[in-house]
Amino acid sequence: MNWLDEVRWDEKGLVTAIAQDAKTQRVLMVAYMNREALTLTAQSGIAHYFSRSRQKLWKKGEESGHLQTVSELRLDCDGDVIVLQIEQAGGIACHTGRESCLYRKLVGEAWQITDPVLKDPAAIYQAGHGH
Amino acid sequence: MNWLDEVRWDEKGLVTAIAQDAKTQRVLMVAYMNREALTLTAQSGIAHYFSRSRQKLWKKGEESGHLQTVSELRLDCDGDVIVLQIEQAGGIACHTGRESCLYRKLVGEAWQITDPVLKDPAAIYQAGHGH
Repeated sequence: MNWLDEVRWDEKGLVTAIAQDAKTQRVLMVAYMNREALTLTAQSGIAHYFSRSRQKLWKKGEESGHLQTVSELRLDCDGDVIVLQIEQAGGIACHTGRESCLYRKLVGEAWQITDPVLKDPAAIYQAGHGH
Repeated sequence: MNWLDEVRWDEKGLVTAIAQDAKTQRVLMVAYMNREALTLTAQSGIAHYFSRSRQKLWKKGEESGHLQTVSELRLDCDGDVIVLQIEQAGGIACHTGRESCLYRKLVGEAWQITDPVLKDPAAIYQAGHGH
């Protein structure tokens, strides 16, 4: 069977994709891939996702320059989750300018922000930057 | 705002939940939580999920004894992913009897199994065990 057919694509043709820092093992972000995104990721070694909000293929870092170099792809037991081991260019995976999208921790009954903003999002997403 | 209302529940009232080994940082499994599951997890310190296949609350390990003790809960930037830091009882998170559900790695164009079965699933899920 083709490796892409072993993925259990959901009704929208997507699979959940978790990007984990290959060195620290921190979860940096969670996004979605369609068949094209997963194929391109495997072929190029650079993470591609499918943007649900924009409904299109999304090469992570295409605007920000924060590309993700992929060293490993894993599939879970029921085939609906991919885990990527990545090296994050710029050390910033989150659109808020933080290292990780998981920057809020539950403390008592409140989500507490634990991570600093490393770069102002306005500076990350300058018009035309990186295109 | 109530911390539960900061979670962006999907149209089925669920949020993606990633369980990560608190020591090794390996991703052990990915499941879903509804409001009740997340509340119980936070209150008890034991991971609860919502089983989509059985459409009911699922205390992980209720049958197998493989409970998950939670040391940290994080929420991602757009509120639709929870990451749990856990200690996995028995060292087995996957229903296949493996440590992690992510036991397949892409090698060339094939998903290659990298992890041994630590315990026969038939022995894990004996009738009535752990109830």
